[in-house]
Amino acid sequence: MTAQAPDGAPDSVPDPFPGLPPLIDQHCHGVLRGDLSAAEFESYLTESDRPAAAGTTFFDTQAGFAVRRWCPPLLGLAPHCAPGAYLARRRELGPAETRRLLLGGTGIGTYLVDTGLPGDLTGAHETAEAGGGTGHEIVRLETLAERVAAGVRAARTAGEETADAAAEVFAAGLADAVRDAARTAAGFKSVAAYRHGLALAPEPPTAADVVTAARVWLAAGSHRLADPVLLRHLMWLAVGTGRPLQLHTGFGDPDLRLHHADPALLTDFAHATAGTGTDLILLHCYPYHRQAAYLAHAFPHVYADVGLALGHTGPRAAAVLAGFLELAPFGKLLFSTDAYGLPELYTVGSAAFRTALAEVLTGWVRAGAWSAADADRVAALVAAGNARRVYGLSEGR
Amino acid sequence: MTAQAPDGAPDSVPDPFPGLPPLIDQHCHGVLRGDLSAAEFESYLTESDRPAAAGTTFFDTQAGFAVRRWCPPLLGLAPHCAPGAYLARRRELGPAETRRLLLGGTGIGTYLVDTGLPGDLTGAHETAEAGGGTGHEIVRLETLAERVAAGVRAARTAGEETADAAAEVFAAGLADAVRDAARTAAGFKSVAAYRHGLALAPEPPTAADVVTAARVWLAAGSHRLADPVLLRHLMWLAVGTGRPLQLHTGFGDPDLRLHHADPALLTDFAHATAGTGTDLILLHCYPYHRQAAYLAHAFPHVYADVGLALGHTGPRAAAVLAGFLELAPFGKLLFSTDAYGLPELYTVGSAAFRTALAEVLTGWVRAGAWSAADADRVAALVAAGNARRVYGLSEGR
Amino acid sequence: MTAQAPDGAPDSVPDPFPGLPPLIDQHCHGVLRGDLSAAEFESYLTESDRPAAAGTTFFDTQAGFAVRRWCPPLLGLAPHCAPGAYLARRRELGPAETRRLLLGGTGIGTYLVDTGLPGDLTGAHETAEAGGGTGHEIVRLETLAERVAAGVRAARTAGEETADAAAEVFAAGLADAVRDAARTAAGFKSVAAYRHGLALAPEPPTAADVVTAARVWLAAGSHRLADPVLLRHLMWLAVGTGRPLQLHTGFGDPDLRLHHADPALLTDFAHATAGTGTDLILLHCYPYHRQAAYLAHAFPHVYADVGLALGHTGPRAAAVLAGFLELAPFGKLLFSTDAYGLPELYTVGSAAFRTALAEVLTGWVRAGAWSAADADRVAALVAAGNARRVYGLSEGR
Repeated sequence: MTAQAPDGAPDSVPDPFPGLPPLIDQHCHGVLRGDLSAAEFESYLTESDRPAAAGTTFFDTQAGFAVRRWCPPLLGLAPHCAPGAYLARRRELGPAETRRLLLGGTGIGTYLVDTGLPGDLTGAHETAEAGGGTGHEIVRLETLAERVAAGVRAARTAGEETADAAAEVFAAGLADAVRDAARTAAGFKSVAAYRHGLALAPEPPTAADVVTAARVWLAAGSHRLADPVLLRHLMWLAVGTGRPLQLHTGFGDPDLRLHHADPALLTDFAHATAGTGTDLILLHCYPYHRQAAYLAHAFPHVYADVGLALGHTGPRAAAVLAGFLELAPFGKLLFSTDAYGLPELYTVGSAAFRTALAEVLTGWVRAGAWSAADADRVAALVAAGNARRVYGLSEGR
Repeated sequence: MTAQAPDGAPDSVPDPFPGLPPLIDQHCHGVLRGDLSAAEFESYLTESDRPAAAGTTFFDTQAGFAVRRWCPPLLGLAPHCAPGAYLARRRELGPAETRRLLLGGTGIGTYLVDTGLPGDLTGAHETAEAGGGTGHEIVRLETLAERVAAGVRAARTAGEETADAAAEVFAAGLADAVRDAARTAAGFKSVAAYRHGLALAPEPPTAADVVTAARVWLAAGSHRLADPVLLRHLMWLAVGTGRPLQLHTGFGDPDLRLHHADPALLTDFAHATAGTGTDLILLHCYPYHRQAAYLAHAFPHVYADVGLALGHTGPRAAAVLAGFLELAPFGKLLFSTDAYGLPELYTVGSAAFRTALAEVLTGWVRAGAWSAADADRVAALVAAGNARRVYGLSEGR
Repeated sequence: MTAQAPDGAPDSVPDPFPGLPPLIDQHCHGVLRGDLSAAEFESYLTESDRPAAAGTTFFDTQAGFAVRRWCPPLLGLAPHCAPGAYLARRRELGPAETRRLLLGGTGIGTYLVDTGLPGDLTGAHETAEAGGGTGHEIVRLETLAERVAAGVRAARTAGEETADAAAEVFAAGLADAVRDAARTAAGFKSVAAYRHGLALAPEPPTAADVVTAARVWLAAGSHRLADPVLLRHLMWLAVGTGRPLQLHTGFGDPDLRLHHADPALLTDFAHATAGTGTDLILLHCYPYHRQAAYLAHAFPHVYADVGLALGHTGPRAAAVLAGFLELAPFGKLLFSTDAYGLPELYTVGSAAFRTALAEVLTGWVRAGAWSAADADRVAALVAAGNARRVYGLSEGR
């Protein structure tokens, strides 16, 4: 599995899909820098932000079983060893060495890291370095807006501005911040699905609407951005830069109303942005991945991401990936891990992808449905070629 | 298949998953006590309450084929024999002997019987006895409310009360009835999905709202409870008892608007009940079982039930079960048959479950994705362990 | 694969499901009469009406790969040959010979052709003749209404009528046109899902509402019928004839809001039409095919069509077909290709169906879930028997 690993990590597991180019992980997050308690480790095996039910453990999930399948061999243990043994070995090695061993075995060459999550996490370059690859930043729009708003609020606390002026300053500062970010970021990401749901008006709000909404939000108790006008405005600011825009769709933490994250709700936004030249990437998508694949089929500028869905579904990743491959044109699917916090999730995400791809495509070649040459070509597109084209990454990056 | 059967019924079919503990059927109904005509028998093979289309028969369904696969051998016939031959043999044996032979071969040790359906059905203990197991009652909330309302209407007919007083009496009587039921019932069940749909306001209604709604309903022509305020009130009364609350979600008879039974619509109710200590069990779920599994993933107090979906999908039960096993933590899935009317549906439900579990888990172990020990452990949890924990059933029960 | 072909076309591919009767393709369209450029050919491989994204091609889709799998052998080339080689061979043969070779190999005996699409397309009889079969017409309601409206508008342009009178003339003309069409058509088709979405009021509109809506539409700039009152009225006019009514549901071109095409939205219409004696056929259905199968399970007069979904999902057609076969009674599923423009899509649609049916049913027979005799019987029902019964086609047709 590590024949393609950029840094020559130990080749402890046979590669289920030999010949893939170095992967481009088009949506991931940093990993925690420090040591983790058993409870902290477990909390990263789920998308829930709550404890496991009494009498249960998050190790008893597909993500937990997948960690126990793929990671112990990279740390010198037997697959499926007990969680306690694994965590002991991890502590023995320390976070830096664990990270190096796990990331080094993924075969990922390029990391597009969403840096908008809190915690003592490795940054884009630091993450990539541990894996022997290259890192780029994906800028989370809501985090950017909350940072600009914090600055404006701090200035107002100092008594410098009226409410109206503050809203104007915020609007101008936000536009600048997005424009600045676009100079170096690989792309943007919106989590409007979490904050409001995807049933948003498709067109950009007027400047007056933005200022009104900003005034209300800046005066509000909660500093968390959930106003639909501002969420839409952010999406349109990002669209205006021409950088690809990633949109959270499908499952996530309990904050979400799952049916409000159905990517089909983005159809009108896809129509509205069709002429802009900016690409939209639907993240996660599950369990609406067939809907996402349909949008990628219907709209030239819409793409679908297979990450998270594969990492959390264990041996069902093949069935989920195959669901994407029903309607999505093969030039429209993108690999990612959506790894977050634990380097183990990079291992699981990449292994799940390689294994699922091998299972699905080998089966189709064996049945005579696809030629072997087509299967290899499509695999390389999903693994890296499509992301390289969409994000304008050079071969070397 | 009957190695685990509590009563030593004839071992006529090899058990597809040897080593399972006696199953806990956490959602089922009584079976008809008397003889059945061919047409009556057929009408229980479908969730529809209507006749088969001209030129078709409900035997030509996955449920019909599954009955012909699993049941004839238990009555001394060849699998897949003609419906007529099977029905003739059934009449020859009589209902009691048929019931004994079929229920005795399921390997079910504990029956949680929803007793709220009409018809000359066996009760909880009577059903369990025929299968050599133990029975407990699940109280259907709407049936309970309709019974309390009937009492209040009868009293009013006798001229004893004003409309306002009747509503107050109803509200008090309902609270008492739920509290009383909780003393002996294993849990409660709501069919709000049928009566109104799951898009209900999540919080409990006020006492005044309850009385107003009750007054309107008690004066209405229809004695069928479909008022959303009263349906919510019932759910919250049940939550207040601490006993697990089963909620119908997903498919059922044509009364249903399927998209109004999407369990994702219960997300706000899950948030609202998160601190109560009461567990919610999403029944059936299909075709939204991935959504149900997501809720079980996101909320510690939410569980998902695999019954009905498996019994009605024949050899696709493995694919459906695997869909549940993508996101649902393994401590959050519960076996049931949802058998109703025909003892055959107990046979089919338990055989479908064992067969699907064996197919899915054996495949995963063979692929190296799961260890054999983990597979056995998870199978035992879904078969019985999780239900035992959630319903507080002792080992002996 | 062509053992059953009515015209003895070359038997170049082994039939994956020997013994099927000649297929009844219950929903298809004409093929283009003339030569096609490469770009035109490619545009028929997708449901999108837009160009492929830069750097991608619609040949890189399941439909594209399926064409390259099934069609080259019928034109004397190797499967999976390059698109360029295939198109060159096609040009060499010319459109008539290509059509004869491709349609002759499908095993389709009866074609129910929706004639409501624009373009230089073969008609119902002409299409069938090329394949050595029999053709019947399916009348697209919206096209019929637009034709009647064009006549009324032309008369008004000549200054002959007031707006009110024109609307009355339109309403009367429409009723006549539907009644006339019913004399010869095999059935009707509604694309209300495209024009408005399926969340329509279920009951028929009043005559006054129809005239009011007609007046507005006749005066409007757009001649495309999208008024919900008129769309409903058309559906009810069709229901009144007793001929089967096909309803577009599920995926299609980007005009569609996919979630507004969920067949579950037709539940109230199914209730409202339950007593009429007219059958409803849910077309396409994907990705809501489980919902469609549920409606076919719940309502005697509702049927589901497996076409389009199979032709566009390549080797996943087996999984999609199996999804239909979970809840749909076996007397309620209908084969079609939904072929349009390219004779290749007839080849792909029929081959995908035969291959998927063989894979699914053979697997179930091998597992002991179905008897071989039942599998053959059900296959013949879905391939032809159900359509014969629903459309009242004689054995010879």
